Amino acid sequence: MRIAGYLLVIFLQLSWPALAGIGAQGTGEFADHWRPDPMHEYWDPGAHHRPETERVAGVFTGEECLECHAAITPGIVKDWRTSRHALADKPVLCPACHGEDHQKLIFPTPQTCGACHPQRLAQMEEEKKYGFPSHALAMERAVDAKHFADKPKAEVTSCLQCHSVATKCDSCHTRHRFDAAEARRPEACITCHSGPPHPDDETFFNSAHGRKYRLEGKNWAWNNPLKKGNYPAPTCAYCHMRDGNHQVADKAVWKFGIREINPTSAENKIKRKRWMELCADCHPNEIGETFFQALDSERSTAWQQLYNVEKILKKLRSDTLLSPSASERPPYPMEWLATVWPKERIGFYEGQASAFYNVSAIERDYFEMWYFSNLGAYKGMAHGAGEMAKKFHERMDAEARAIGVEAERLRHTKKEGVDWKALWMRGEYTEFNRDHN
Amino acid sequence: MRIAGYLLVIFLQLSWPALAGIGAQGTGEFADHWRPDPMHEYWDPGAHHRPETERVAGVFTGEECLECHAAITPGIVKDWRTSRHALADKPVLCPACHGEDHQKLIFPTPQTCGACHPQRLAQMEEEKKYGFPSHALAMERAVDAKHFADKPKAEVTSCLQCHSVATKCDSCHTRHRFDAAEARRPEACITCHSGPPHPDDETFFNSAHGRKYRLEGKNWAWNNPLKKGNYPAPTCAYCHMRDGNHQVADKAVWKFGIREINPTSAENKIKRKRWMELCADCHPNEIGETFFQALDSERSTAWQQLYNVEKILKKLRSDTLLSPSASERPPYPMEWLATVWPKERIGFYEGQASAFYNVSAIERDYFEMWYFSNLGAYKGMAHGAGEMAKKFHERMDAEARAIGVEAERLRHTKKEGVDWKALWMRGEYTEFNRDHN
Amino acid sequence: MRIAGYLLVIFLQLSWPALAGIGAQGTGEFADHWRPDPMHEYWDPGAHHRPETERVAGVFTGEECLECHAAITPGIVKDWRTSRHALADKPVLCPACHGEDHQKLIFPTPQTCGACHPQRLAQMEEEKKYGFPSHALAMERAVDAKHFADKPKAEVTSCLQCHSVATKCDSCHTRHRFDAAEARRPEACITCHSGPPHPDDETFFNSAHGRKYRLEGKNWAWNNPLKKGNYPAPTCAYCHMRDGNHQVADKAVWKFGIREINPTSAENKIKRKRWMELCADCHPNEIGETFFQALDSERSTAWQQLYNVEKILKKLRSDTLLSPSASERPPYPMEWLATVWPKERIGFYEGQASAFYNVSAIERDYFEMWYFSNLGAYKGMAHGAGEMAKKFHERMDAEARAIGVEAERLRHTKKEGVDWKALWMRGEYTEFNRDHN
Repeated sequence: MRIAGYLLVIFLQLSWPALAGIGAQGTGEFADHWRPDPMHEYWDPGAHHRPETERVAGVFTGEECLECHAAITPGIVKDWRTSRHALADKPVLCPACHGEDHQKLIFPTPQTCGACHPQRLAQMEEEKKYGFPSHALAMERAVDAKHFADKPKAEVTSCLQCHSVATKCDSCHTRHRFDAAEARRPEACITCHSGPPHPDDETFFNSAHGRKYRLEGKNWAWNNPLKKGNYPAPTCAYCHMRDGNHQVADKAVWKFGIREINPTSAENKIKRKRWMELCADCHPNEIGETFFQALDSERSTAWQQLYNVEKILKKLRSDTLLSPSASERPPYPMEWLATVWPKERIGFYEGQASAFYNVSAIERDYFEMWYFSNLGAYKGMAHGAGEMAKKFHERMDAEARAIGVEAERLRHTKKEGVDWKALWMRGEYTEFNRDHN
Repeated sequence: MRIAGYLLVIFLQLSWPALAGIGAQGTGEFADHWRPDPMHEYWDPGAHHRPETERVAGVFTGEECLECHAAITPGIVKDWRTSRHALADKPVLCPACHGEDHQKLIFPTPQTCGACHPQRLAQMEEEKKYGFPSHALAMERAVDAKHFADKPKAEVTSCLQCHSVATKCDSCHTRHRFDAAEARRPEACITCHSGPPHPDDETFFNSAHGRKYRLEGKNWAWNNPLKKGNYPAPTCAYCHMRDGNHQVADKAVWKFGIREINPTSAENKIKRKRWMELCADCHPNEIGETFFQALDSERSTAWQQLYNVEKILKKLRSDTLLSPSASERPPYPMEWLATVWPKERIGFYEGQASAFYNVSAIERDYFEMWYFSNLGAYKGMAHGAGEMAKKFHERMDAEARAIGVEAERLRHTKKEGVDWKALWMRGEYTEFNRDHN
Repeated sequence: MRIAGYLLVIFLQLSWPALAGIGAQGTGEFADHWRPDPMHEYWDPGAHHRPETERVAGVFTGEECLECHAAITPGIVKDWRTSRHALADKPVLCPACHGEDHQKLIFPTPQTCGACHPQRLAQMEEEKKYGFPSHALAMERAVDAKHFADKPKAEVTSCLQCHSVATKCDSCHTRHRFDAAEARRPEACITCHSGPPHPDDETFFNSAHGRKYRLEGKNWAWNNPLKKGNYPAPTCAYCHMRDGNHQVADKAVWKFGIREINPTSAENKIKRKRWMELCADCHPNEIGETFFQALDSERSTAWQQLYNVEKILKKLRSDTLLSPSASERPPYPMEWLATVWPKERIGFYEGQASAFYNVSAIERDYFEMWYFSNLGAYKGMAHGAGEMAKKFHERMDAEARAIGVEAERLRHTKKEGVDWKALWMRGEYTEFNRDHN
């Protein structure tokens, strides 16, 4: 029976593109498994923007654009008029970015901006060599994630709003001012970098650095470059985008927080040295080392607890108490190996977040402990917010305990009853959406 | 036995006002079932304010008031001195709102303010034709809710603080400046519109609009009317109180978020058109349509999941696994029908929030999924904050899973043990408070 | 067997200091059970700071310090240059606080600052007579808490960051400006006073007072003393540190929120009168009384519900359904009595927060209800934020219900299965850390 199922899955995967082909306009590896929503043309304009052709026809100069739009959409015209684009000796007018034919209007991409700002584009592109997570790969890796086509598209659209950091520059530089001074401030970052699994806003704001920013930051000279001595306290961009470098990955320890890393590997030593040089802008040299010792120690404590909980889950697995088990779950599209060799998802897993939907409840509970609370604790410690580190460790404690209780329950209850398939396997994630996204 | 109980309930409901009568000073349908706390005279001054008569006697002019209070309560005098009331050619002095007899002082109501601001009062009153939720009916419908008399009064008092938006104008226009510029800013709204079930603050602040406000909003010209072209980005009042219209209900789709609505009904099409006209202040026409398509799609996904979970609960109900069941719960006062035909509360229920207290644990879990997380997802999407929509959908996923686990447990456990009556039926909600509120 | 265990514990506790002695550098009662992390020299410099001796040698004047550090750490020099220390007729230069020998540099303690600011130091020290919680005892009582040596040190380090309010003045007066105007603003407080169990930030910011601050507070004259008439609305310091008094404990009702207190005791009447005098800065006298009546009423409702849940736990205890039970838990170090007379921790317990780790899951659930949600409700009510009081009461309701469900489950399940010892008794809290902290 299971074999038959596998064969069906393989057949469907092979034949699906042919069957569904016409009109499918997705992008990436699973292009044939999803169609873009209208909203996608905003989040990934390079791939999905379709110019509006029904209303206005004609080719216009920038002055003509402005004349009309000052009445139609006055806000964006006012914003542009205060921008460096408008105030330059040779102003950058609307057609420079949008084209001049109103029936073929362009939504600008990083490449559009890169025509005049090649250094910034090159810095961003350079991130790709560091892999994901990174701004530059945010859209590509989201769309190519194994589970992408299996997630309800409406939720995917929510995800892509933040992942559009890779595909349009106004994620950080709000159109139509595109103000560097704005993008230097933490508010430019925290629209995305907030909430689980990356509470960068509350961990930064609850640090001594963040307090200083909250108290007086609005009056700092934000037109200054992000250089030593220019700011009374560091903010997101000061540390992560030093000197305005749009390459934010070269100090980032790969997947730190999500996996246990060895801080003394050759590569991580280099990265840590870069951090310490930064800390030394304001602090004596020793504080960097001390700070990282505290972070290592916090991480070690967190992993000790995470591994204890992983053991509980692995024991449940070997006792076949996880339901649905890995073999009861549909594999992801094109995930050939999983059709014959299904894998549980306990702890670090390549596919990350969304990969943890079609799992048993207790696996998901651990996922939240690991991906939400543990990452929160890491962010708290890394941003110097002891109160936040404490709060997320308390949460981990509570979750570890709840998982223990649930594991105990599973050992005493015959695992049946609720129809998981009805709840999760259809209608939420996997095959259903694969045909309908 | 149950019949006898019903008769007793009916007898008590009929005779209660007579038995408790003397001194009962509540308002609304259940006036006889509760007495106002002292704090109520602040939240509903028209109904409950009792002038202080023990200290100061006499009739005073505004100048006399000011002279004394500049020493006694200097803050409010300073605030008034910077108000339009003070700076007008013919200043509006203390007695205009409070009366001149210190033993008969008035706490102003919307009617007091409406004497000089009749248009604003009329706009607010006009909301009533749209039903609840609305600012104008916030107090009346709270007090007349079926469960009002059954909630511990101390908690009711907390609720009424926000519901006082209907009964006093300084909920939004802080006394004694009553500054329109203040009330135009989001901070005036979010004292109430924050947290579950209406995280309007975090969903707005995490949108691109909110980011712009956070970055530069304090410097915008808040004395400008809320009109196209006057503000670089929209805020609560810009969209919901266009041109300062104090009628905030005419664009609101009725109970959108709480129920599955048909966005293409005649009425909703009109409302949506009003929204899109507003979006067009700054955005091309298409974006309104695209945005609402994304919202419809998100809602449809949310309801698909909510209905899946409702099915689990309804199956439990038909298998008599909900404890306490509807028939084991005391009916609300004057809820005649429920005494003979008890109803479970699974999903949308007229009485809303507080109606979900005297229910089984799993019904309450679903209530939180539906009323807190689902509404959060809706607000996230409606305010353009993808990160928040994602966050609340993740929460819904976790809650759906937990409900599934609990349902499974209930099928394997004989439902007895904890004395629900001891925990909930006495001392928290229902009859006990009905006699003591 | 158990007796043998007791004897072993007693033996170990007696002999431990002798066995572990050499090199142990902790402080307080459990000095021999823990060693400070490097970070501790920042959180408690008086006890743990070790001067850096490897880099720079020499004795320097303030001018020499400034010359070098303007290049090395320009931020702190700039901060100092705008401080009253720099602008005084006789500037307070670096050596005044740090010493002049670069190999014996001092990290300043409250005593360092007290040399010039004796009144502020005396006020802070005076708090000690009120016991804990208080700023002055924050470090001492943390380190001397029964469970201190049993908590993983990395988490303890997080805790100490906030508790360092007792051991260094720049917790509130950010170095190197040490600005009184900064410390008067709520941001100075909420780096620590945020999140559970003390959501002072969100409860204040969601009050009418907080709204006023959020709207216009940045423009208030923060150089003004915290006196009647100087501020349009109160903030943390205005109420809790009136006139800048660094003694914040004389209006604080002892452990209000954590225990049920009698508001009409002789002592509490005096404290309440102090509060009402403060409210009268802006409000008519009656409002203080009304406000406190509402608070008393909210507290009474909260305790009614907490006691109902405590009853459930006590019944479980008498039926020996708590696992691990008190007798299965290791006693805290030096807790002689507990080795022979183990005590459950249900509700108010001297050791507070961290004492609730090595308990059964349901005791911990109640702890969170009592210590996080109940305290949140109290803070909401006490700060005049009805919306927050409501939110935390809703959370208490949900938690009470979940505890009821879990209690029911425990009555139907044989209590074994998960190895609590593996999860909690080793590696997280207690003996293991006692040897390794």
